[in-house]
Amino acid sequence: MEVYLDNSATTPVDPEVAALVLRCMEEDYGNAASLHLKGTAAEKQVRLAKERIAKTLRGEPRNIFFTSGGTESNNWAIFGTAEGYRRAGKHLITTVVEHPSVRNPFRKLSEEGWDVTWLPVDPDGAVRLSDLEAALRPDTVLVSVMYVNNEIGAVEPIAEIGEYLHKNRPDVIFHCDAVQAYGKYRIQPKKLHIDLLSVSGHKLHGPKGVGFLYADDRVKLRPLILGGGQQKGMRSGTENVPGAAGLGLAAEKMYNNLDQTVTRLYALKQRLMEGLSTIEGTHFNGKTDKDSAPHIVSCSFAGVRSEVLLHALEAKGIYVSSGSACSSSHPSEITTLLGIGLTKEQQEGTIRFSLSGLNTEEEIDYTLAALRETLPVLRRFTRR
Amino acid sequence: MEVYLDNSATTPVDPEVAALVLRCMEEDYGNAASLHLKGTAAEKQVRLAKERIAKTLRGEPRNIFFTSGGTESNNWAIFGTAEGYRRAGKHLITTVVEHPSVRNPFRKLSEEGWDVTWLPVDPDGAVRLSDLEAALRPDTVLVSVMYVNNEIGAVEPIAEIGEYLHKNRPDVIFHCDAVQAYGKYRIQPKKLHIDLLSVSGHKLHGPKGVGFLYADDRVKLRPLILGGGQQKGMRSGTENVPGAAGLGLAAEKMYNNLDQTVTRLYALKQRLMEGLSTIEGTHFNGKTDKDSAPHIVSCSFAGVRSEVLLHALEAKGIYVSSGSACSSSHPSEITTLLGIGLTKEQQEGTIRFSLSGLNTEEEIDYTLAALRETLPVLRRFTRR
Repeated sequence: MEVYLDNSATTPVDPEVAALVLRCMEEDYGNAASLHLKGTAAEKQVRLAKERIAKTLRGEPRNIFFTSGGTESNNWAIFGTAEGYRRAGKHLITTVVEHPSVRNPFRKLSEEGWDVTWLPVDPDGAVRLSDLEAALRPDTVLVSVMYVNNEIGAVEPIAEIGEYLHKNRPDVIFHCDAVQAYGKYRIQPKKLHIDLLSVSGHKLHGPKGVGFLYADDRVKLRPLILGGGQQKGMRSGTENVPGAAGLGLAAEKMYNNLDQTVTRLYALKQRLMEGLSTIEGTHFNGKTDKDSAPHIVSCSFAGVRSEVLLHALEAKGIYVSSGSACSSSHPSEITTLLGIGLTKEQQEGTIRFSLSGLNTEEEIDYTLAALRETLPVLRRFTRR
Repeated sequence: MEVYLDNSATTPVDPEVAALVLRCMEEDYGNAASLHLKGTAAEKQVRLAKERIAKTLRGEPRNIFFTSGGTESNNWAIFGTAEGYRRAGKHLITTVVEHPSVRNPFRKLSEEGWDVTWLPVDPDGAVRLSDLEAALRPDTVLVSVMYVNNEIGAVEPIAEIGEYLHKNRPDVIFHCDAVQAYGKYRIQPKKLHIDLLSVSGHKLHGPKGVGFLYADDRVKLRPLILGGGQQKGMRSGTENVPGAAGLGLAAEKMYNNLDQTVTRLYALKQRLMEGLSTIEGTHFNGKTDKDSAPHIVSCSFAGVRSEVLLHALEAKGIYVSSGSACSSSHPSEITTLLGIGLTKEQQEGTIRFSLSGLNTEEEIDYTLAALRETLPVLRRFTRR
């Protein structure tokens, strides 16, 4: 049996999406900037994709800009806002639990002379609105908070932050990294007062190498990548027509089945957590109810190193992640676990299980059985 | 009949490449950073792609970094070098005929206080080594010259420039935008003393949304996009496994058949030019022999506007480009034609025909017949 429980790292591409990508490679292969029929056919695919995505956000297609993925979207949102507002202020706010594609741009800006406030989180991984309120300064230009944390599935108080900023600091730009949330939550940027929203295609059964940044009209965003003036000059480069089309279709499909999928994910998550809680020496990181993301379970196993457990499960055809997955090969990047106060041993024994709508109850049961079988052996081995 | 003569804008994806992309989306869909089998299978695809590409350059896989395309590669090479060497000097050299993805980063650096020298070109579109020699200053840190011009197919003296810099200014970094040259020329960066080489996938029957930057070990290049530390921290973001794999295969296939393809392209180009030269009021831009690129013919038609001619040809199923193709919708970007001294009328009557190995003699003859039929009508119409 093969059980893929690493869907927060990446997801298999939906076969219909893959078929559309293929069609765009072989038939609608034109350059969307070309003036002839091959160009307009390609441009039509890109336009349709923007319409599909805009609909899921209850937004306008003109506010959707395709990028090479979530990392570029985050980099662009942060660097592009900093550049656009450098005369307005020099203070930026983010959190200690952001993905490295948010954290590292802020680190760089900090090195370049910007003041960056790193908000702490509570033991469940959520920032407190009071901390944000206290951190705001007259020269704050940007607040960046993720929607769902990629390591433990904590859900940040995005609606509250958006509301607070809208009422009290409408001049501040609000960026939200929604890479782990889009396709799981109904996100309406206008309603939530989110100015910039980052999304990645491959987390929702779309293609790799494509994502988008939603940017509200009001944001004086500067482009990160310059060139031939594609996408209204905001993101140059020949448009990735197959990628954009694939992401558009994947988004539409996710949102057409959202309620069903989310219900299913919570049921699978519940089943997994109930099983895990009967295993000795397990500790859940973050919340375990519907206040946490439907697809992520972070569990620390006492007396075992996560990499060893990961490979033991791999031998049984079960694929999970140790700590954060987007950069598993870099242990120095595991910071949410530290941020919520885990001990070193707990951090080193943490496994992330992440689900998709393709997982089944049988897979969960198989995984639990494998853990029950494997853990005592590994723990005995570790003690020696 | 459908005749696609806009291959410098983009090319149809090779069916074998498309099949590999599909396989990576559906089977090897793992995150290359994941530690389990799904991750290592994906990582293997990326490694194979780097090996395939390195072989075509007679270089090492470690010097290949995947990007989202030629535009990102150019932006990264220029901004990343400027940042890495800002303490070494403040002078940069490029040419007036570069692609906008080179030109615009230099413009931005110029606005930020860097000194940029824009080398002129001769009437055939080539820079003169003597101009470069004269432009070099003690504080010059980067020279960026394209290999093949995208508008007229001029071939720049890359070997001479590399040799000159290597002998006289080994401290200067040499970047070459090879987007229109890779897959047509055997380019050995080490031999040519090229430090940074930009390539795009979709110009050689590979996928859109992927390209690479070759970066020599000696370059103190700073990353443009920060995050999870993928690709040795030089280009973060979940690796675009299908794109990378597709580009690797496309590159291998192009170079396995290079001599045949190039011979074929020159024969087709010759046939097209001979036909065009028998048509009244035509003027070729740049060189017409084997000193020019095998796949590009730029021709100005007197007494007709290129967009009108483009759409007249489109009506007959022939797809060409007016001026430069990567950004045809932005006429302000047509600069090579100005750089080589064309009159406004000549610029406005310029069509670029660009070939691939998939074109046939019949297609060329059909295109010539269409032009012979259409041009007198359009010219009569224009005169009225």
